[in-house]
Amino acid sequence: MESNAILETVNSIIFGSHGVWFLIGAALVYFMQAGFAMCEAGFTRAKNVGNIIMKNLMDFCLGTVAFIFVGYNILCGDASKFWGGFSMNPFDFGSMDCYGFVFNLVFCATCATIVSGAMAERTKFLTYCIYSFVISLIIYPVEAHWVWGGTAWLTDLGFTDFAGSAVIHMVGGVTGFIGACFLGPRIGKYDKNGHARPILGHNISIAALGVFILWFGWYGFNGAAAADGQHLGQIFSTTTLAPACATVVAMIYTWVRFGKPDVSLSLNGSLAGLVAITAGCDNVDNVGAMIIGAVAGLLLCIFVPFIDNVLKVDDPVGACSVHGVCGCFGTLAVGLFDYTDGLFYGGGVHHLLIQLLGVVCIAGWAIICDLILFTILKKTVGVRVSEREELEGLDATEHGLETGYAGFLMDKDN
Amino acid sequence: MESNAILETVNSIIFGSHGVWFLIGAALVYFMQAGFAMCEAGFTRAKNVGNIIMKNLMDFCLGTVAFIFVGYNILCGDASKFWGGFSMNPFDFGSMDCYGFVFNLVFCATCATIVSGAMAERTKFLTYCIYSFVISLIIYPVEAHWVWGGTAWLTDLGFTDFAGSAVIHMVGGVTGFIGACFLGPRIGKYDKNGHARPILGHNISIAALGVFILWFGWYGFNGAAAADGQHLGQIFSTTTLAPACATVVAMIYTWVRFGKPDVSLSLNGSLAGLVAITAGCDNVDNVGAMIIGAVAGLLLCIFVPFIDNVLKVDDPVGACSVHGVCGCFGTLAVGLFDYTDGLFYGGGVHHLLIQLLGVVCIAGWAIICDLILFTILKKTVGVRVSEREELEGLDATEHGLETGYAGFLMDKDN
Amino acid sequence: MESNAILETVNSIIFGSHGVWFLIGAALVYFMQAGFAMCEAGFTRAKNVGNIIMKNLMDFCLGTVAFIFVGYNILCGDASKFWGGFSMNPFDFGSMDCYGFVFNLVFCATCATIVSGAMAERTKFLTYCIYSFVISLIIYPVEAHWVWGGTAWLTDLGFTDFAGSAVIHMVGGVTGFIGACFLGPRIGKYDKNGHARPILGHNISIAALGVFILWFGWYGFNGAAAADGQHLGQIFSTTTLAPACATVVAMIYTWVRFGKPDVSLSLNGSLAGLVAITAGCDNVDNVGAMIIGAVAGLLLCIFVPFIDNVLKVDDPVGACSVHGVCGCFGTLAVGLFDYTDGLFYGGGVHHLLIQLLGVVCIAGWAIICDLILFTILKKTVGVRVSEREELEGLDATEHGLETGYAGFLMDKDN
Repeated sequence: MESNAILETVNSIIFGSHGVWFLIGAALVYFMQAGFAMCEAGFTRAKNVGNIIMKNLMDFCLGTVAFIFVGYNILCGDASKFWGGFSMNPFDFGSMDCYGFVFNLVFCATCATIVSGAMAERTKFLTYCIYSFVISLIIYPVEAHWVWGGTAWLTDLGFTDFAGSAVIHMVGGVTGFIGACFLGPRIGKYDKNGHARPILGHNISIAALGVFILWFGWYGFNGAAAADGQHLGQIFSTTTLAPACATVVAMIYTWVRFGKPDVSLSLNGSLAGLVAITAGCDNVDNVGAMIIGAVAGLLLCIFVPFIDNVLKVDDPVGACSVHGVCGCFGTLAVGLFDYTDGLFYGGGVHHLLIQLLGVVCIAGWAIICDLILFTILKKTVGVRVSEREELEGLDATEHGLETGYAGFLMDKDN
Repeated sequence: MESNAILETVNSIIFGSHGVWFLIGAALVYFMQAGFAMCEAGFTRAKNVGNIIMKNLMDFCLGTVAFIFVGYNILCGDASKFWGGFSMNPFDFGSMDCYGFVFNLVFCATCATIVSGAMAERTKFLTYCIYSFVISLIIYPVEAHWVWGGTAWLTDLGFTDFAGSAVIHMVGGVTGFIGACFLGPRIGKYDKNGHARPILGHNISIAALGVFILWFGWYGFNGAAAADGQHLGQIFSTTTLAPACATVVAMIYTWVRFGKPDVSLSLNGSLAGLVAITAGCDNVDNVGAMIIGAVAGLLLCIFVPFIDNVLKVDDPVGACSVHGVCGCFGTLAVGLFDYTDGLFYGGGVHHLLIQLLGVVCIAGWAIICDLILFTILKKTVGVRVSEREELEGLDATEHGLETGYAGFLMDKDN
Repeated sequence: MESNAILETVNSIIFGSHGVWFLIGAALVYFMQAGFAMCEAGFTRAKNVGNIIMKNLMDFCLGTVAFIFVGYNILCGDASKFWGGFSMNPFDFGSMDCYGFVFNLVFCATCATIVSGAMAERTKFLTYCIYSFVISLIIYPVEAHWVWGGTAWLTDLGFTDFAGSAVIHMVGGVTGFIGACFLGPRIGKYDKNGHARPILGHNISIAALGVFILWFGWYGFNGAAAADGQHLGQIFSTTTLAPACATVVAMIYTWVRFGKPDVSLSLNGSLAGLVAITAGCDNVDNVGAMIIGAVAGLLLCIFVPFIDNVLKVDDPVGACSVHGVCGCFGTLAVGLFDYTDGLFYGGGVHHLLIQLLGVVCIAGWAIICDLILFTILKKTVGVRVSEREELEGLDATEHGLETGYAGFLMDKDN
């Protein structure tokens, strides 16, 4: 064997779709489930903590079942441009690519779990289980097939979404938005005059922990598919700069606008920057990453109150702004900041238009599927718990868990 | 050097017993200490939170001291089939294998720390320190020597326990069960008629975090010893499918049986599936992993109330069912699902009988040692705190810590 | 290419300054931010939890901005022995080393974030933002340049600080000490007679989680720069033994001295051992690591009450003892325990004197900068919040966050 061929083999043992780093990255992406669970739990109320954790746990576990039997084939097969068909037998290691299954599963589960935040504190648990099964079974796999699958027609056109600003985060954010619209706001969210009231979360420390875990896991999320070490270095650099700048901008914006630097918007600022850089982490340079992050931080601070006060859609954790708006923006931004052919780098408008096409197709698919799915759910099992259940808390009514912190206060008597 | 020899060298730099992934995996296994600490703390009461954390911390630290001086030599040396002798000098890097020491230590510490959950909320701290020193000094190293050590007579017979369903989890679960029997139930656990009463944990969010951390760390636990990239892919796949199916089964079982999907049994379902797949993660295919996981989820839901209500042994976190029962089951299941020679794959009953032999020998050794150890402890330092201490809480009485959440409520006054 | 050259290339793809493990290690070091945030939040009061999290978040994010524009060039350039100049263009991937930037940034951020613990619960947020910007902009980069930068005159002299006991931890501890001196003690910390009163933290479980996360991340902190697999094994071994022994010593010391094994000193004992082994993790053997750890555990238990009661400096989380004292000790200890030329290994006093010189120069630089910085801050924006703000809590007064646990208790009414 030639030495170049040997080094290529070595590179593939470490990087790419069958490398050890690919799986380490997948493990990091799995760990983001913990981040989402803590973040969403912390930003909502104690009476629903068991329910939100259960949702985060079950969307991964139900999604795994849906994905191995159906979703993975739809995503990675090459039956047609629209979907992948059923070419792989999940039970035959000869035809089954375990690397590909695990890797794609953890990304699929990220898409599914984003939605639980926007629909928190009032969704029927059964409804959520069905939703998360269907998104992993078909909604996510089809659009991901267009970008990363066997035929990948959007990628062939020149669409760039390296790690899923649109494919994962925008789809999660859009689905959460539609879900929240179907649900309506939580009791007490709007006063008689329709003014939004804050409903504060119960645990800022675990919410912050969730954000730190997500950022940590994002090095795997964005980095796992790096072609080689040089790209990995660039990805780590852009994946650090964008959230840092987004957080700084969110802090400064809230400081100037409201007089005090806001903790929860700053924490969400980190996520906004991470979401926005996800599409272009491999294709933009450091200055591009910083600008993308800064704009994402600003968009977050504008859209959270806009959705709350103007659209009057109740998104308890800000998932629509973080994942939907910044996912969309980050995907379009590649058309501006791609250092090979972005608009701002002398590449003309072509890449930007392709990015726009991709965003429209992917969001369109998600919106259509979501409308059908939530309409069916609303007419059958129903989407929302009763007023009594919501007031009492979903832990008690949906799970028979008196409270998630039972032994906390009555410890001396018990 | 031939290109094949070069690639073999490269493989050994990444995988196997001196590869970088071996140590990354070990770090992930270390992180499982955090998972156990959070899980056990969350599922018990606030008045004992400092104590349970202290136990989880000290079993690793005391175990490290016991393991470097004695345990590691017993496990990895080759003095005899029974034990390893004292051939390695821990202070001489020439004869000492640092990779092997760190790797085996973190697994040993996992075995030790399982027990703290079953013995929670009533064990004398000194007693726990002695127990955890002895299990790392001799109990675990001897039986692990039989399977993974220098002579490994059980493995030579054909016994398969890839990452320790029996060697680690079953031994931890059995030891916890015997410890809980010696201790007796917590005050208030059974009413006058002997009916079990639930004693709720104080913090479901950190308990859930613990489960997510454990699952994340398990990719290192099961994967670290993979021979190469292909095996690692299979291991990641089985290590994902089994807990996902176990969790789904636990959720459905509790939903059907009790009318509501139970949060803490679902969380424990993930652990049950992980424990059960640990023995066969490298030797079963995806369908095998899913069935093993599903059965483990079912066993969990049957054995938790059985131990509680029928055996009347008080295991505050369900460690005996999760680690003991599912560890035993997972080891036997390899005899059924091993795709090279399992009973269900046309290999006959031979492998199953060898698995049974291994389980009997390992459990037998653990039971004998545990009976001797806890008997001596009971007759000397005692195993259980006084009634007053238990009611007041171990944080105050064992550690002089008024409460682990002192600054929580009285923050305005302080 | 010769086979040796190929294997060298392979080694560089995995280890060293452009290897995949280098970046995985950097991600682990990033995760230590979560560890510091949880540890500091848990050991302080609930009314300041949002503030302490915000500080930990912002010192990383503001530090990133300072570091990419200025700090990284100062550290890694080779303009002079004193500083690095401005040779790299952060926006040009041709001249920019992304590996080096990310790697050095996460270490820089560790140094910055240590300080927030010592200055907790009474520092103006704006002041903290300015401080953390300046330490990442210039204070840390200059002294790190002396040891790890382009010219590295201290390392050329024979100074050994493998992963930063002095460069990072001692500087963080010293800066925290000076900051705490400028601030003065929290209200209620000392009674009328000047006796120190304990001000208990609000959440021992997340404090413990923070310690476990830090220990986990430390395998990256100490290991990331390993030259090859053999060194990595040694580093993992020493990085495990030192904190284990330090924790055991802290537990025994407090047990003997106060009658009960102390939880928070034991947890801090782990950190003390980790800090102390950081300088010599690659240069001491296992026995050296155990002794260094044991001494660090002892120093911690002596210096925490000494700083509290004798110096009467209020350090809420013990950062000065953990990072300052043990960082200094660990650096000097390399002169004693280096197995090639340490005093105890027959190498004479030369290495020890060089270590002393390094400690003096680095601490001297930090002290001078800190005195100038905090003096300017005190005379301009001020360093401390008002008495009213401190009593009410920084969450409310600095961030407009009523409480970080709002939804916790009033969940039923909300």
